[in-house]
Amino acid sequence: MARYAIGLDYGTNSVRAIIVDVRNGGEVATAVWGYSHGKEGVILSRDPNLARQHPADYLTGAEITIRQALANARRTLKGFRPADVIGIGVDTTGSTPLPVDREGIPLAFDKKFAHEPAAMAWLWKDHTGVHEAQEITALARKIRPQYLAKCGGTYSSEWFFSKILHCLRTSPKVFRAAYTWVEIADWIPAMLTGTQRPDRLSIGVCAAGHKAMFNARWGGYPDKAFLGRLDKAMGQLRDRLRPVARTVAQPAGRLTAEWAAKTGLPPGIPVAVGAFDAHLGGVGAGIAPGTLVKIIGTSTCDMMVAPAGKPLADIPGLCGIVPGSILPGFYGLEAGQSAVGDIFNWFVNYVQPHGKAGTHENLSAEAAKLSPGESGLLALDWNNGNRTILVDQRLTGLLIGQTLYTTPAEIYRALVEATAFGALTIINRFEEYGVKVRQVVNCGGIAEKNPLVMQVYADVTGRPMKISRSAQTCALGAAIAGAVVAGKKAGGYANFAAARKAMTALKKTVFTPNAKAHAVYKELYSLYRRLHDAFGLPDGTDRLHDVMKKLIDIRNKARK
Amino acid sequence: MARYAIGLDYGTNSVRAIIVDVRNGGEVATAVWGYSHGKEGVILSRDPNLARQHPADYLTGAEITIRQALANARRTLKGFRPADVIGIGVDTTGSTPLPVDREGIPLAFDKKFAHEPAAMAWLWKDHTGVHEAQEITALARKIRPQYLAKCGGTYSSEWFFSKILHCLRTSPKVFRAAYTWVEIADWIPAMLTGTQRPDRLSIGVCAAGHKAMFNARWGGYPDKAFLGRLDKAMGQLRDRLRPVARTVAQPAGRLTAEWAAKTGLPPGIPVAVGAFDAHLGGVGAGIAPGTLVKIIGTSTCDMMVAPAGKPLADIPGLCGIVPGSILPGFYGLEAGQSAVGDIFNWFVNYVQPHGKAGTHENLSAEAAKLSPGESGLLALDWNNGNRTILVDQRLTGLLIGQTLYTTPAEIYRALVEATAFGALTIINRFEEYGVKVRQVVNCGGIAEKNPLVMQVYADVTGRPMKISRSAQTCALGAAIAGAVVAGKKAGGYANFAAARKAMTALKKTVFTPNAKAHAVYKELYSLYRRLHDAFGLPDGTDRLHDVMKKLIDIRNKARK
Repeated sequence: MARYAIGLDYGTNSVRAIIVDVRNGGEVATAVWGYSHGKEGVILSRDPNLARQHPADYLTGAEITIRQALANARRTLKGFRPADVIGIGVDTTGSTPLPVDREGIPLAFDKKFAHEPAAMAWLWKDHTGVHEAQEITALARKIRPQYLAKCGGTYSSEWFFSKILHCLRTSPKVFRAAYTWVEIADWIPAMLTGTQRPDRLSIGVCAAGHKAMFNARWGGYPDKAFLGRLDKAMGQLRDRLRPVARTVAQPAGRLTAEWAAKTGLPPGIPVAVGAFDAHLGGVGAGIAPGTLVKIIGTSTCDMMVAPAGKPLADIPGLCGIVPGSILPGFYGLEAGQSAVGDIFNWFVNYVQPHGKAGTHENLSAEAAKLSPGESGLLALDWNNGNRTILVDQRLTGLLIGQTLYTTPAEIYRALVEATAFGALTIINRFEEYGVKVRQVVNCGGIAEKNPLVMQVYADVTGRPMKISRSAQTCALGAAIAGAVVAGKKAGGYANFAAARKAMTALKKTVFTPNAKAHAVYKELYSLYRRLHDAFGLPDGTDRLHDVMKKLIDIRNKARK
Repeated sequence: MARYAIGLDYGTNSVRAIIVDVRNGGEVATAVWGYSHGKEGVILSRDPNLARQHPADYLTGAEITIRQALANARRTLKGFRPADVIGIGVDTTGSTPLPVDREGIPLAFDKKFAHEPAAMAWLWKDHTGVHEAQEITALARKIRPQYLAKCGGTYSSEWFFSKILHCLRTSPKVFRAAYTWVEIADWIPAMLTGTQRPDRLSIGVCAAGHKAMFNARWGGYPDKAFLGRLDKAMGQLRDRLRPVARTVAQPAGRLTAEWAAKTGLPPGIPVAVGAFDAHLGGVGAGIAPGTLVKIIGTSTCDMMVAPAGKPLADIPGLCGIVPGSILPGFYGLEAGQSAVGDIFNWFVNYVQPHGKAGTHENLSAEAAKLSPGESGLLALDWNNGNRTILVDQRLTGLLIGQTLYTTPAEIYRALVEATAFGALTIINRFEEYGVKVRQVVNCGGIAEKNPLVMQVYADVTGRPMKISRSAQTCALGAAIAGAVVAGKKAGGYANFAAARKAMTALKKTVFTPNAKAHAVYKELYSLYRRLHDAFGLPDGTDRLHDVMKKLIDIRNKARK
């Protein structure tokens, strides 16, 4: 008998609901809704570091997309019944914390704060807390080095406490009005299950462990004394944070009658504890030891797991090493690039080369005709900072090698190559610390739709690039969590290993590296690493005089 | 009684004829013709270093523009008579050498070579001879260091012998078919006066001195032994080059009856020895000791003069120090930037930001609204290499500081600022070697039409930017040469000093530096110099890690 699980996937610009056949992981129906606030769902300001979202979009989005997905399933699948949906999983961007009141209701829903950006959700890519991140890092280095060892040695401006502290410093009214702060990965399942009150709330170990220095070893969140050294009010906030964090194998609660009525789903079905998109994307792509899952979207997350039983070195520059953050029983390892699709989007949408003719499709097609090295260009993929391995948000983009004849397609390809070099740097870092990468599975829109990007990644890394069968691995991973929390009795699964075998697969298409291209990219990568180290490392000293000339030599060879 | 002189100004894309009133330098009429060959007059190939012109365009252009200018003058000026034209001057781009046969006729006019790029004129910005330039430099450093001391220490790929040697190496058929090579600055006056036969040809000291290591001190061109060490055939060519070079104060000859008939001018009027556009542009802008004349076009020439009687140090990185190359009795000092307008044109025409809306006008207007530093961007102005002070054609462009929100107007402004930083580097170099810059006079299309560029130059250099009254200083300088070779008796002038007083002036508009902007640009310039030295100097070593961060700090201050 058919049973279904729903995955709710909250992205940067839109939310997607998918309905998945629990027996084989097949996608039965889907629906997407673009957030209504800001520019494509993101509230911006003159400050390029600011990026917020309105939490009303999360609720409206759940209602619209679940209803629409159910309607689509009924239309396309004979005999489909909403009553056969047995569980829900939720994944979101993060760290995206949201200030809420004593009842767990966002301050943004209060008229007083309706137009106050500080009262909104602080989107993952909001970097306004750069100075606060430096302050937290400096304090932890001094008095709690163990906190940093699990998050790459540097606390990021993208993360929970940097954002909250920045709010305290710059919007004290909002900070004072907030009872506590909740990751949207936790808040959304809580709203669906009526468990949003801060004293009933289930929080996920994924968000807490990777972004808020939560670790059972030191009793959960950073201790009160530590937070109090940042600001007395931060120490007081510690008392209102949750003491325990859960994995996605546990339910946050059961769907309320109100949400059942709104969506058409059966009331009482379990909703899994939430996790970040990339982590559940790893699950949806079939993550297992040795498999690097790359979720390539606006930014990239590079996920691996390692058995929690064996010792594992702290890997410098990795965003996080958290037991249970991806799969129960395994360390979740998260690396990533702060911008990938966002860099291509910047070029197309902001620079608008060739005006309306400069689409991703046209530029990719033109760029695909070029040989590695022939443009003479080299770029750093740092338009949004560098997450792994430098963990530095105050890095910016760089393009070198322009002539008077440099074309947009050449620049576009150089930007694609730059993200590939960034990807290689991450793979190398994993392996340098003993986490062997045996296969690379890509997912996300770019992996699906842009063969140029995948071929360049294969050629740059010298490794085959495989693609997850599902086009929506994050949403699929969320649905898998829904199937696991529903349990075997209800028609779901007893654990994630069983669910992975049944519900995930790879595409037949594999992008294999071209040896000649790889050879050129080896040369280019050595120049990339020199620029990377010169501009990225505090103690990087290099003679750069030959960089432009080497690019010209490579170009001339490539053109022959 | 009114007397007129004609200036013929051969640019990169078109030729212009102006008719000037000799009494006051006023422009009576003008006509422009765009060359018919190649892309906007430039024959290109897949090799971005290649840039050629068809010499037929020079002759067609003279005929069309003189005839048209005379017609315009007759229409707009009552009583104007072509018979009152007393002399002609010619300026051209350079070094732009052309292979000719034993009669002085270009090989390009021979059917056999009609489609052979090597038989065309090798335009100033052709850099195909990069390796040959290195070879010439290396040889001269070893056995004739005195040759290099007058041209900045490095022989450029833009120059006479690099191009000829490259032709010998890569198109030996063309090299063997050529009797000799002639700068178009010499060949065009020769054609107008029927003196093109290699044994009758007058050559100018401007082209020969600045680009071909010609110096009376060592008997003219580099000696036969030196050239023979490059290649035996180069040594043999030395015998067919001219022994004497002249200044623009001397006539190349008199207008032939044939050219008089073609154009409608009186036969027999003198045509001055030709010179480069920038040098005669200096004359048209009123050059004198202490006055830096900046001719801002596709590239930039920065011209100064110093009394030939006094000792003058060899200035490292300067393109040339040549007695008489601008004015008789003075050293002509030539510096310059390999691309200025060409960089802005590259961005508009190749990248095409915003499609058709991304015009120079729109981008300049948007860029003018930005404050110095607020974009967080910094660029190097090396898309076409660096002429002064690095003398290195194998340098390329660099843009640093991009975020996900960087706009085309911000990039455009960064490119403008980069050229201003390049301009400041040249001013500093003059003054470091004792050539005091007392005023800066700008001319050329960009100086005329783009107040953003002029204001940025004033703010970056901290000096007032003055503008030549004439919009066409190069053509005016050529006409002044025509008035001087005509002589006082014919209604012209006995010398250049008298002509300058009567025929040149400045505009009332002066762009004065803004102190606050200058302060920000001082900070940015120090970062520019660090990138300049890191990428430009063989021994430049620097810790660059703080560069991106400093740009962000400057940006944040600028946005407050």
